[in-house]
Amino acid sequence: MARPRFGLIGTGFIGRAHAIALNAVGAVFADQEAPVCELLADTTVDSAARGARALGFARSTGDWRALVTDRAVDVVDVCTPNHLHREMALAAIAAGKHVYCEKPLANTAREAAEIAAAADAAGVRHMMGFNYICNPLLQLAREMIAAGELGEVYAFRGSYLEDYMSDPAVPWTWRCDRALAGSGALADLGSHLINLGHFLLGGIARVQGSLQTVHAQRRDPASGQLRAVENEDIARALVEFERGLPGTFEISRVGTGYKCGLAFSVFGTRGALEFQQERMNELRHYDAAGPAARSGFRTILAGPEHPDYRPFCPAPGHGLGYNDLKVIEVRNVLRAIANGTPGWPDFHEGVRVQRVMEAIEQSHASRSWTEVPS
Amino acid sequence: MARPRFGLIGTGFIGRAHAIALNAVGAVFADQEAPVCELLADTTVDSAARGARALGFARSTGDWRALVTDRAVDVVDVCTPNHLHREMALAAIAAGKHVYCEKPLANTAREAAEIAAAADAAGVRHMMGFNYICNPLLQLAREMIAAGELGEVYAFRGSYLEDYMSDPAVPWTWRCDRALAGSGALADLGSHLINLGHFLLGGIARVQGSLQTVHAQRRDPASGQLRAVENEDIARALVEFERGLPGTFEISRVGTGYKCGLAFSVFGTRGALEFQQERMNELRHYDAAGPAARSGFRTILAGPEHPDYRPFCPAPGHGLGYNDLKVIEVRNVLRAIANGTPGWPDFHEGVRVQRVMEAIEQSHASRSWTEVPS
Amino acid sequence: MARPRFGLIGTGFIGRAHAIALNAVGAVFADQEAPVCELLADTTVDSAARGARALGFARSTGDWRALVTDRAVDVVDVCTPNHLHREMALAAIAAGKHVYCEKPLANTAREAAEIAAAADAAGVRHMMGFNYICNPLLQLAREMIAAGELGEVYAFRGSYLEDYMSDPAVPWTWRCDRALAGSGALADLGSHLINLGHFLLGGIARVQGSLQTVHAQRRDPASGQLRAVENEDIARALVEFERGLPGTFEISRVGTGYKCGLAFSVFGTRGALEFQQERMNELRHYDAAGPAARSGFRTILAGPEHPDYRPFCPAPGHGLGYNDLKVIEVRNVLRAIANGTPGWPDFHEGVRVQRVMEAIEQSHASRSWTEVPS
Amino acid sequence: MARPRFGLIGTGFIGRAHAIALNAVGAVFADQEAPVCELLADTTVDSAARGARALGFARSTGDWRALVTDRAVDVVDVCTPNHLHREMALAAIAAGKHVYCEKPLANTAREAAEIAAAADAAGVRHMMGFNYICNPLLQLAREMIAAGELGEVYAFRGSYLEDYMSDPAVPWTWRCDRALAGSGALADLGSHLINLGHFLLGGIARVQGSLQTVHAQRRDPASGQLRAVENEDIARALVEFERGLPGTFEISRVGTGYKCGLAFSVFGTRGALEFQQERMNELRHYDAAGPAARSGFRTILAGPEHPDYRPFCPAPGHGLGYNDLKVIEVRNVLRAIANGTPGWPDFHEGVRVQRVMEAIEQSHASRSWTEVPS
Repeated sequence: MARPRFGLIGTGFIGRAHAIALNAVGAVFADQEAPVCELLADTTVDSAARGARALGFARSTGDWRALVTDRAVDVVDVCTPNHLHREMALAAIAAGKHVYCEKPLANTAREAAEIAAAADAAGVRHMMGFNYICNPLLQLAREMIAAGELGEVYAFRGSYLEDYMSDPAVPWTWRCDRALAGSGALADLGSHLINLGHFLLGGIARVQGSLQTVHAQRRDPASGQLRAVENEDIARALVEFERGLPGTFEISRVGTGYKCGLAFSVFGTRGALEFQQERMNELRHYDAAGPAARSGFRTILAGPEHPDYRPFCPAPGHGLGYNDLKVIEVRNVLRAIANGTPGWPDFHEGVRVQRVMEAIEQSHASRSWTEVPS
Repeated sequence: MARPRFGLIGTGFIGRAHAIALNAVGAVFADQEAPVCELLADTTVDSAARGARALGFARSTGDWRALVTDRAVDVVDVCTPNHLHREMALAAIAAGKHVYCEKPLANTAREAAEIAAAADAAGVRHMMGFNYICNPLLQLAREMIAAGELGEVYAFRGSYLEDYMSDPAVPWTWRCDRALAGSGALADLGSHLINLGHFLLGGIARVQGSLQTVHAQRRDPASGQLRAVENEDIARALVEFERGLPGTFEISRVGTGYKCGLAFSVFGTRGALEFQQERMNELRHYDAAGPAARSGFRTILAGPEHPDYRPFCPAPGHGLGYNDLKVIEVRNVLRAIANGTPGWPDFHEGVRVQRVMEAIEQSHASRSWTEVPS
Repeated sequence: MARPRFGLIGTGFIGRAHAIALNAVGAVFADQEAPVCELLADTTVDSAARGARALGFARSTGDWRALVTDRAVDVVDVCTPNHLHREMALAAIAAGKHVYCEKPLANTAREAAEIAAAADAAGVRHMMGFNYICNPLLQLAREMIAAGELGEVYAFRGSYLEDYMSDPAVPWTWRCDRALAGSGALADLGSHLINLGHFLLGGIARVQGSLQTVHAQRRDPASGQLRAVENEDIARALVEFERGLPGTFEISRVGTGYKCGLAFSVFGTRGALEFQQERMNELRHYDAAGPAARSGFRTILAGPEHPDYRPFCPAPGHGLGYNDLKVIEVRNVLRAIANGTPGWPDFHEGVRVQRVMEAIEQSHASRSWTEVPS
Repeated sequence: MARPRFGLIGTGFIGRAHAIALNAVGAVFADQEAPVCELLADTTVDSAARGARALGFARSTGDWRALVTDRAVDVVDVCTPNHLHREMALAAIAAGKHVYCEKPLANTAREAAEIAAAADAAGVRHMMGFNYICNPLLQLAREMIAAGELGEVYAFRGSYLEDYMSDPAVPWTWRCDRALAGSGALADLGSHLINLGHFLLGGIARVQGSLQTVHAQRRDPASGQLRAVENEDIARALVEFERGLPGTFEISRVGTGYKCGLAFSVFGTRGALEFQQERMNELRHYDAAGPAARSGFRTILAGPEHPDYRPFCPAPGHGLGYNDLKVIEVRNVLRAIANGTPGWPDFHEGVRVQRVMEAIEQSHASRSWTEVPS
């Protein structure tokens, strides 16, 4: 099969991370042919041209609509602000392209479901950008849970704390605008945590959520005026997974001191696992077997015995970085395309994540437990 | 004033900790005269006599009723299983003794309130055993919050995880019996966490709780038969403090890997604090002031600049232990008695803690937000 | 046997720690009768009287010579500055008292050997105050090494870093005076590290040392003038243990940021151990057995399965403190006296520690490897 | 200027890391044009062809001599075992190519100096592969030291511990052969630590070293027989930097439990810094300014305010990995070539590192302090 040709829309934070991964994936994975960086779209012709030069793309355009219908593009990679995902993804699907879309898939579950259904109907591959679960240590965690190494697993604690909006002086951005961003911390950070919960333990049945907007107004740099923040800074939830396992979620964009605090604990009758993304090369494992006098949490350093680590480095403990997670994710996208079979996390997972987010919001509004539609 | 004479009931885990503290407090605090270890009661004459010899008490008795009315006893120190607190405390109060009682004050909020009212009516001093908050670093945390060092404080995360019942093979004990223990993880561990929340941030207005009994039955060593576990292994709650600050509680006696995991995070606009009891000599402080390129969580080691540390050691970082917290607590009890004024945490705090525990239980039953009566 | 009656000389930092331990040891160890706090000596009659009241001693004196010959004193406990140890210990021995002396035993190895010989000749018990090795986790470490749990042990890294003299503005004290303190960081901190090395791995055969005085002068608060610092701020050494095992020592009283940084690593073919006193309730253990994909350093929290922990607390992870180490040490002293047999670390260990310190100093002067006399 | 065309020799661990970096550097650094992956040499035609395909090189060869004289190659990148560096580098220099060589530059200081002199004489650019110092946080550390943020810096502790040869059952490899590898732990790991010392604090004047071969023989998989290990497993040294600052080095390939334990502490009158490569995104900083009651080591997470971080990610705390360090290093190589001026670390640094290594070996042999030739 020919090397898939990528059309990337967006050159912000996450667009650049995709571009770096597209450039690196072939060299990292010996059995994976490098994709073609074919076409880059950005908001203007100039910025797109600059981006293409910087990011190693062959061509550029100031019009994303041209990209999604470009005949030399096989995969459309959507790295734009949340409210643009729907239109772009649907256009790409309509043009028969495979679609690789950053989280969240859309700003509502209904729109997300519309996109997933369209992609299925068109028979294209669709994959979400939930990079954290690509971590070799989280793959290991999933394997350990599934293999029963923790015994019967009965509790989950998850959190994702960052502090980019702790300071009330941080200006208003599109992330504060419900029409553009959808929810706040939930969409930006919570989507990752929910996906991680799904990855480790399966679907979520119901939630009891609570939202908090710490700073009700922020100064809009465009107008110089205070402007309402239309979504939450913090989301908390009691949750129940479909397998009957309860847990908690804590999600904050005002978690002062945390820079990338995606964390979880999983507890079972025979062991426990803990992880925090700021120390992404460490998985803490407590094994209840053995004598109490020698027991304790063990810090497993990522190494070549763990899934997808060896292609980066044959030596343990040398450390992967955030961008390496995207390299693994891109490899997963390429595999799904090459195999012609669904990958994971696909758009259906994008829908499921959105539904949990919405259930948390509804639960907050009704102050009652809320079922997650399946 | 004469040195107060203590009558201690109970020689288990916590009774011994009280006795050690009663022996040490005079030497540790130069300005504090040592109390008199006058009388020790245990379940039998023999065990009481052995205990008195071992723990430095002048006399012993197998009858706690004799202790509470003993003329040479000024303070009754109740260190028995939960269901005995009420009767003993009321009897001591009736005899005009000061009472120092381990948590929880009683097995229901109503009983707790009855005890507190009786103590007030009798005009005796009454103090609770919530030792963790005596930690110099938690006193520091309280001061920092109160002084605004974290800016406006807007979020609390608290947990208390231990794993003494993670293993399904752990036998049934009185802690599994509602009549004897009241609630499970809530009474044993949650009471400390709630008290800590009160200590740092004030009263709790309402909760949304969820309880989980992981192991529904355990083998009763008395009968050799499986026996129902009548209270929860895990309690989770969304909470709202009276000052309008939301938070979460997570309490577990099946928190595999944790031995004394009382922990919290407090987030504010200008900083954050974090603590975990297993590293009780460390307080993590994030100060948002200063350049981002130098920012990070700072690990403050307990030292003589912190409240109540210097009497133990003039050098920083040398470390206090669990029993030292009891020494501080006993000093607080002695102060309240010497001053003839209410100390803190007194029985009213015991009542408030119990009310939060019951609100969590009621909320679980009704699956709705529940107000904490004030 | 009657309860041994203690005469304590000195009420500074370490004298108070001894007093606290003497008050607590009976209550902590059920099988250990409490010693009698008989007589306290300090530099003046008044300060001694105040100290006795505060620290629970029956009598006091402003004359240490009266204490060492007091007929009601069985054990003389020397907690004075280094240069006084020799005279006091010899006087106590001459009076037929058991002697319990703080480190270092003397300011030179020759004087230390003189004291040890005198004690042996008099047939009294003699014990040193090297409290850190009393830690349950260090006792565990010693057992694990001896039992071969690390395989063949082949390397040691030890350090003891504090920062009490990092700041050049810290005034001159007696610790800077060779006649009063002997060596600097070596005597104050290095003596503990050397003792710890002996405890874990046996005797030290030779050293290659290097000393550094960072701040050559400090202001003497008595005169207001700058005054020479006569001993080292930092000592470093390559060492070889008698069993043929090499290692390194790093000792500093200007280790900026460290408050009680006594630390070591021991490496063997099948495992490793690491410890740092500032986290004195944690022992890190790497076990090379088992699959690489699950390997990592395990943090063992001190608990009742470890030597001498349970008398303090039946629950794991609740934490001992610095003063608890002294309680264990005092118990060891009481045992040696009760048994009438040598305890450890006795004055001969004090001599051996002193010889290593001197070998490091001599090696620094000669800039060559130096044998430790045996 | 045209994009530099790279010829890479070697496709092992470090060759692949170079290839990944060559593919990624253009996308990461917006202002840096991507180099051309022109020609790859490996030991056979087939393995080279496979490597070229996997690693994104245009052409391949089984003959490194053809590579170094290939007209389409501008830069020769030497990633072969140590004993081949000299011949390859000299041949590349003779052909007028720029040379980028992995550490150590050669197996002796004399050979290293020969190479550096040849490169200077030929007027080509020459750069070493010492990737660890490219870490944004180590660049920050260097800046902080240079700017006096730690006050007067007076002590260094450095170590590099890995455990890849802890197990005596690990087979004999070329790294155990003096003719092929030169020294053992020193060449493989110590070279990095010495370079790091140079980077932070400047040249090293003299050393007192001690070497240890823990496992004298290992089984040669080729012959099935035991074979002598000809170089050290552990190197320890007391060192003195030219600026008059003492320190210690500890280097081990049998540091059981460590996977990439390159670590240092730097102490000054006003602060301290600590780093460990296994947590490469954290720099611990102690700032002695401010009140003691708030002091402690602060964990600075790598972020966009630190040198060379932002091109990887605009958000702090997201984490760089080992391969990202190589990307920065390759950017430095490209800059040196583009500027036509010496970069750092160049071959002269390679020579200096080698001289320190040899001085440690000589010091071990003579058991005396040894000057490092300048």
